[in-house]
Amino acid sequence: MKALVLEEKGKLSLRDFDIPATLGPRDVRIRTHTVGICGSDVHYYTHGKIGHFVVREPMVLGHEASGTVIEAGAEVTHLKPGDRVCMEPGIPDPTSRAAKLGIYNVDPAVTFWATPPVHGCLTPEVVHPAAFTYKLPGNVSFAEGAMVEPFAIGMQAALRARIQPGDVAVVTGAGPIGMMVALAALAGGCARVIVADLAQPKLDIIGAYDGIETVNIRNRPLAEAVAEATDNWGADIVFECSGAAPAILGMHQLARPGGAIVLVGMPVDPVPVDIVGLQAKELRVETVFRYANAYDRAIALIASGKVDLKPLISASIPFADSIAGFDRAVEARETDVKLQIVMPE
Amino acid sequence: MKALVLEEKGKLSLRDFDIPATLGPRDVRIRTHTVGICGSDVHYYTHGKIGHFVVREPMVLGHEASGTVIEAGAEVTHLKPGDRVCMEPGIPDPTSRAAKLGIYNVDPAVTFWATPPVHGCLTPEVVHPAAFTYKLPGNVSFAEGAMVEPFAIGMQAALRARIQPGDVAVVTGAGPIGMMVALAALAGGCARVIVADLAQPKLDIIGAYDGIETVNIRNRPLAEAVAEATDNWGADIVFECSGAAPAILGMHQLARPGGAIVLVGMPVDPVPVDIVGLQAKELRVETVFRYANAYDRAIALIASGKVDLKPLISASIPFADSIAGFDRAVEARETDVKLQIVMPE
Amino acid sequence: MKALVLEEKGKLSLRDFDIPATLGPRDVRIRTHTVGICGSDVHYYTHGKIGHFVVREPMVLGHEASGTVIEAGAEVTHLKPGDRVCMEPGIPDPTSRAAKLGIYNVDPAVTFWATPPVHGCLTPEVVHPAAFTYKLPGNVSFAEGAMVEPFAIGMQAALRARIQPGDVAVVTGAGPIGMMVALAALAGGCARVIVADLAQPKLDIIGAYDGIETVNIRNRPLAEAVAEATDNWGADIVFECSGAAPAILGMHQLARPGGAIVLVGMPVDPVPVDIVGLQAKELRVETVFRYANAYDRAIALIASGKVDLKPLISASIPFADSIAGFDRAVEARETDVKLQIVMPE
Amino acid sequence: MKALVLEEKGKLSLRDFDIPATLGPRDVRIRTHTVGICGSDVHYYTHGKIGHFVVREPMVLGHEASGTVIEAGAEVTHLKPGDRVCMEPGIPDPTSRAAKLGIYNVDPAVTFWATPPVHGCLTPEVVHPAAFTYKLPGNVSFAEGAMVEPFAIGMQAALRARIQPGDVAVVTGAGPIGMMVALAALAGGCARVIVADLAQPKLDIIGAYDGIETVNIRNRPLAEAVAEATDNWGADIVFECSGAAPAILGMHQLARPGGAIVLVGMPVDPVPVDIVGLQAKELRVETVFRYANAYDRAIALIASGKVDLKPLISASIPFADSIAGFDRAVEARETDVKLQIVMPE
Repeated sequence: MKALVLEEKGKLSLRDFDIPATLGPRDVRIRTHTVGICGSDVHYYTHGKIGHFVVREPMVLGHEASGTVIEAGAEVTHLKPGDRVCMEPGIPDPTSRAAKLGIYNVDPAVTFWATPPVHGCLTPEVVHPAAFTYKLPGNVSFAEGAMVEPFAIGMQAALRARIQPGDVAVVTGAGPIGMMVALAALAGGCARVIVADLAQPKLDIIGAYDGIETVNIRNRPLAEAVAEATDNWGADIVFECSGAAPAILGMHQLARPGGAIVLVGMPVDPVPVDIVGLQAKELRVETVFRYANAYDRAIALIASGKVDLKPLISASIPFADSIAGFDRAVEARETDVKLQIVMPE
Repeated sequence: MKALVLEEKGKLSLRDFDIPATLGPRDVRIRTHTVGICGSDVHYYTHGKIGHFVVREPMVLGHEASGTVIEAGAEVTHLKPGDRVCMEPGIPDPTSRAAKLGIYNVDPAVTFWATPPVHGCLTPEVVHPAAFTYKLPGNVSFAEGAMVEPFAIGMQAALRARIQPGDVAVVTGAGPIGMMVALAALAGGCARVIVADLAQPKLDIIGAYDGIETVNIRNRPLAEAVAEATDNWGADIVFECSGAAPAILGMHQLARPGGAIVLVGMPVDPVPVDIVGLQAKELRVETVFRYANAYDRAIALIASGKVDLKPLISASIPFADSIAGFDRAVEARETDVKLQIVMPE
Repeated sequence: MKALVLEEKGKLSLRDFDIPATLGPRDVRIRTHTVGICGSDVHYYTHGKIGHFVVREPMVLGHEASGTVIEAGAEVTHLKPGDRVCMEPGIPDPTSRAAKLGIYNVDPAVTFWATPPVHGCLTPEVVHPAAFTYKLPGNVSFAEGAMVEPFAIGMQAALRARIQPGDVAVVTGAGPIGMMVALAALAGGCARVIVADLAQPKLDIIGAYDGIETVNIRNRPLAEAVAEATDNWGADIVFECSGAAPAILGMHQLARPGGAIVLVGMPVDPVPVDIVGLQAKELRVETVFRYANAYDRAIALIASGKVDLKPLISASIPFADSIAGFDRAVEARETDVKLQIVMPE
Repeated sequence: MKALVLEEKGKLSLRDFDIPATLGPRDVRIRTHTVGICGSDVHYYTHGKIGHFVVREPMVLGHEASGTVIEAGAEVTHLKPGDRVCMEPGIPDPTSRAAKLGIYNVDPAVTFWATPPVHGCLTPEVVHPAAFTYKLPGNVSFAEGAMVEPFAIGMQAALRARIQPGDVAVVTGAGPIGMMVALAALAGGCARVIVADLAQPKLDIIGAYDGIETVNIRNRPLAEAVAEATDNWGADIVFECSGAAPAILGMHQLARPGGAIVLVGMPVDPVPVDIVGLQAKELRVETVFRYANAYDRAIALIASGKVDLKPLISASIPFADSIAGFDRAVEARETDVKLQIVMPE
């Protein structure tokens, strides 16, 4: 079977590649339809590693996928051939201590698509546990189905925030994940979401949504804008999605007394935090690692029309042009949010 | 000053009535503009009492109010004459044990407009603590401002529910409060809200909102409709707004394992509850008493456009016609949601 | 292998009985040491059913067990032969929707020892999933290990209560479960626990613990005693463990404004609840169904010495005398808390 | 009236000093009995400031106090002359936005004893709001009453942690506050508390309590000790009480997946935090600022005997020797936990 293979740092091939995959009794076999390109895929391509995950052998990329069930294991009850689905790429040990607690995302034994040494799904067929495969409602397209994975990160941030209806949120950083977080926060109960970035094209894209305000921090200090927007009270929730040291150092200034900060952005190295600044407002700081139990919720919000991710799909690239697609992703154009690869019928 | 006075059970007068009101240093004086008629006002009119609150002296009615500040006490900083406002009708002892905990709504010392022996606000001027008076944004009308009070009950239900983004909710009972709850739940993060009632005209009104589905329980068992809508899993949250014994007895059937029930409806007498039914799904049951810290949030959602209460205002009645307005409220027309009384300029 | 078999309602045999048990790769084989007699075992004996669980075939009883691992499946890593253990009797589908959420106790697919048609563990050897088998620290005896199951119900009640350090709790009903709840609440952060019952011998047993106060409701109205003990504020948490209709009808009177009630007792039929009484204090009502993720915590509290369950073990009965042990349990002596059956070496 | 006055940085006087104090209708006048010396008092003495709070005028020190009511304002109902009490030193605006939410400790308008320009209580009489004055039970001494303030900080940490019964906690730093946190965590539901420090005398003092284990990090890496104590799972809660940069940088290593960190220690400047380390376990980070609604709970735990603070009172110093007492506090002997000043009868 053809697959998009990261041979080594900087070198992609579209070639035959066999991933051994026996269909277990609780698995489904899926014909992949659409696979989004994630920043982590691009990072493995350009750097050959993320933290201590190092690409040592050729590895198939891709983990944001939708497709169609073509075979179901003997014990699978909620899926059958023909069902349109999307797939949660991380598979825990279901009886680990973390999984029993419902936080299977932080199970140390999780395997995750396209995280070395585990192959991804940029190939026409994959086998996946039925329990981590979710049926798409009729009004959710394959393209939207492949957006569920990145949106689930936004949902996880919204879940961890414990939004209260009518909250005011600030999102620092308007990259793809910042945008997902903003939409999840808005659909998840916030009255207003203020998104800040330096790049005006990104702000224009996310600012086109009703209920989202934008601040270009080249033009205006964010703390000042938030103070004005909240009568000097501060935001109920600050979603830090930039990973940038200055944003992290000043994040407490944006929050109200007793508010919350959700750390979504991932600074590579330790960065200075103003702990006394956090304490003086007794802020709660939540962190996010992928997602757990977020797929159902993400799909429900897309299907209900409360969240429209289609404007964030910047291009649909045929599988045959995958490498060009990745090279475009490397460019990191400010008008590109999500590039998707579409498999051949 | 003229006021709408409940002289005794069944007898209203629009007559001169002086409510002594000194302006304290932390109070504001407000010229009332719009006052909604609440079910409790009507109940005092028709029954002369609610529970152990009995009308023993003539009492001014009304507690859902908006208006304009005309004078501010010496220590008031966030309001000034000319500000358009709405008023939270319950005033706690701010240093009581409950108030210190932030749950000032359950402070046993609360005084509440139009709850004997405390007069209401159906009169051209009132004095109120500035801390319980909220400025209306420019895009929120007086009519909407007078809707904040009933909507705050919906908000309180949504707050107590601890909605998680993407939840599915069921609301049993489509009276005015059930409608407020449905809108608060939807804006507060639910993906879908299913509203059930016997009265089709009520369902037609609330069903006209995007994201709200309706079930007429004359036509179909609600448990069956919920099971179908949720793949036999059940709703994440059930808001019981009918106060009807059969709905309360069966409410656990609507919820998913580990879900929540919020008791909003108020059955006069104790009613049978299937405790083992609740336990078998380990449901959490929350109760609601008025609201605390909900006004800011309610106003934010109205101002942001996420919640549109205007379609629920069925009629605007001049103050001079107040008694006719109350008599219409007594009729309880199925097409009337909220009747409002507008004070003379 | 010998087993204690409930042949049918009212008829027990101690006889050879083979429970087919293949050791899977993630299972352990355990030589049982001690098995407590639970009220549910007794109820199946005397009534032949609990709710819709009906004993239609001979069934081995027992689900409160400790023992020693004698064989471990190939993939088991945290247990090895010779380990002293206790076993969680309910086994969920680990990838069910409920289990993924961490609430595996309410997975509709759970199988549970000695709940028809599943056999229990009153037999010398059992096979059990390693993930639901917990190692006992050296200072926890087999007798205490067999108490972990009933204590886990107390722990679940304490967990659901969301105790805040220094809370005052009331426990209505001093049966074995009420006692477990009282001890879990006290160790779990309460400053004081007030236990109420009609039976003085039960109150004497639980009242012998430091930090536990008792009220005999034959002598004094409980609401009055709680009001006095709390300066008329009420208890932060009420654990309803009696299942008695009058206790349930009046439970809101015991709680403080904004407090919580945890429904542990299981009244067979629907019982009247004063919903307006709950609402007037905006109480939160939690329910309990068995337990999830409570075994580790229960064992930690026993091992640390914060909870001493030994005084609640009323008798140790040899396996050969099991039937006599059950007949003593049927007597329900007020001085008996827990009877345990000890297997032959 | 005599008072202990900080004239300026480094200069204390025991001299006549009049603090104007009118008794309002909701105030009480208290004859002070015992006043603990807090690290912040000492810091003002040695540095003349804490952050942006600068001593510009002579200021009376002291904020950890107990005493006896000698006069009660006209509207005071829960206190009367003769009542033995302790006092919460921070007074919010009771109708501020923060106070209405129940988080009055983070009300920007709070005034706090011995925080410039507000005078403290090291003087024979003070006037204080009755709402922030708490009656001591008969079995709680004045010395213990003056310990309620520092213990309330430990309580706040335990409250913010949201301890679940049976949790394992680690406390980094065995200063007076670290000790208070350890005792609050243990009484508040933890099964085990592991306290780490470099100073063996401090560890000996806190390690003398049942249920508290100690690790001297001169002898052994804390991460290793915690891993061993928790079967490589990690602690449920880490209370960071050292404020030391290395402890903060490595704190995520001590916690279990999905665990919590409570930041109690206050590093003066921003310090590096390993955000990805926090995220990889999806840790929750709470911060603490003084306390709110903690006094009742603290007193209840002391009165019930679950918390014994007496071993932490290192010396009782007559008011006449206050300056010598402060000079001893400046020495920071490793065997001194809390020094208290006792007022003349």
